[in-house]
Amino acid sequence: MSDGIPFAGEPDDSHEAIMRATFRALREYGYAGLSIQRIADEADLSKSTFYHHFDGKEDLLLSFQEFILTEFNRIFQLESTGDPEQDLKTFVSLILDDFPECVETPDKNAVLGSYVEMRAQAVQNPDFREKFTETDKLFARQFAQIIEDGIEQGEFAEVDAEKVSQFMIMVLDGVILQNATRDDDPVSTVRDTIDEYIEDTLLLDS
Amino acid sequence: MSDGIPFAGEPDDSHEAIMRATFRALREYGYAGLSIQRIADEADLSKSTFYHHFDGKEDLLLSFQEFILTEFNRIFQLESTGDPEQDLKTFVSLILDDFPECVETPDKNAVLGSYVEMRAQAVQNPDFREKFTETDKLFARQFAQIIEDGIEQGEFAEVDAEKVSQFMIMVLDGVILQNATRDDDPVSTVRDTIDEYIEDTLLLDS
Repeated sequence: MSDGIPFAGEPDDSHEAIMRATFRALREYGYAGLSIQRIADEADLSKSTFYHHFDGKEDLLLSFQEFILTEFNRIFQLESTGDPEQDLKTFVSLILDDFPECVETPDKNAVLGSYVEMRAQAVQNPDFREKFTETDKLFARQFAQIIEDGIEQGEFAEVDAEKVSQFMIMVLDGVILQNATRDDDPVSTVRDTIDEYIEDTLLLDS
Repeated sequence: MSDGIPFAGEPDDSHEAIMRATFRALREYGYAGLSIQRIADEADLSKSTFYHHFDGKEDLLLSFQEFILTEFNRIFQLESTGDPEQDLKTFVSLILDDFPECVETPDKNAVLGSYVEMRAQAVQNPDFREKFTETDKLFARQFAQIIEDGIEQGEFAEVDAEKVSQFMIMVLDGVILQNATRDDDPVSTVRDTIDEYIEDTLLLDS
């Protein structure tokens, strides 16, 4: 991959070419329509090359979950600016608003749609469930760190950072789920409410 | 069905037997593993009886979405008690807490898991998306009505009922998504935070 960005430039190797092909096949055929043949066709590889990399569909899908979560985390990864209020707003804005031009991903909604489809597999699949539990916790920790920094710097109220961050992660998962599965634009209705929650709960000078 | 409760007693007819069989097959094989043959086997019906009721898998799944949403709405339907604070707490508790004994559903988590799996289909399927958009709006309206009643009775702060209810629906969808796809119990961490949000935002006497 180019500069560590999964969807930019030419794929580095067959593994990555297969991951990108899986992403395209998922967009085209849906989860239930994914097949090794279709993915191999999309990647312009033979099925035998495919089986050189993966034991089968189950193995592929675990790798693909990892790939989507890496992309998800890359999108929502924050470099701390040293200003927790700004960090918090950037973090929330990345999820709620259109992407700033600096984020090189072809289609945010497609990535979030795939995230929802992969996440739904975790209802049945314990391996997926384990992985999502782990990444949810990392994600909440990142959020809690911003809150703790804000408290330490005297900018945020002394809330329970773990609880508030877990709550925010749930709100954002709810936003992502609804956004990916509705015809209208429910986020625009709640955009102010989410800002108000953050202001009322966290910001001392509001 | 018995007393209008989809999972209680003997199924009234083949249509309902097929819906229940789809629910069981979904629990057993996952969404990707659903097939007409497996559903017919579960329902103890021939494939030809199946095709008497449904044109095919697509048609079946739209009916099944309806079935799960009906069950979902039955579970979360509220009879107004005339006390909006109580209604609100009951509504939230139905989603966050264990079922009270009066709710006759064999397994709340199985229903919510199926809801997540069906909802993920809406990422790709416009018919599913249309239906979820519609039922989300009905659900939010029900919630907004409780808030409006509370404002009218002078118990709740004069918030924008539509926005707060849409926000709460997102929170609850986030809770349902995480709960169905994690190993641990994230709801217990945020239970207090959700109560606090409601108290701080809505209740005047808190």
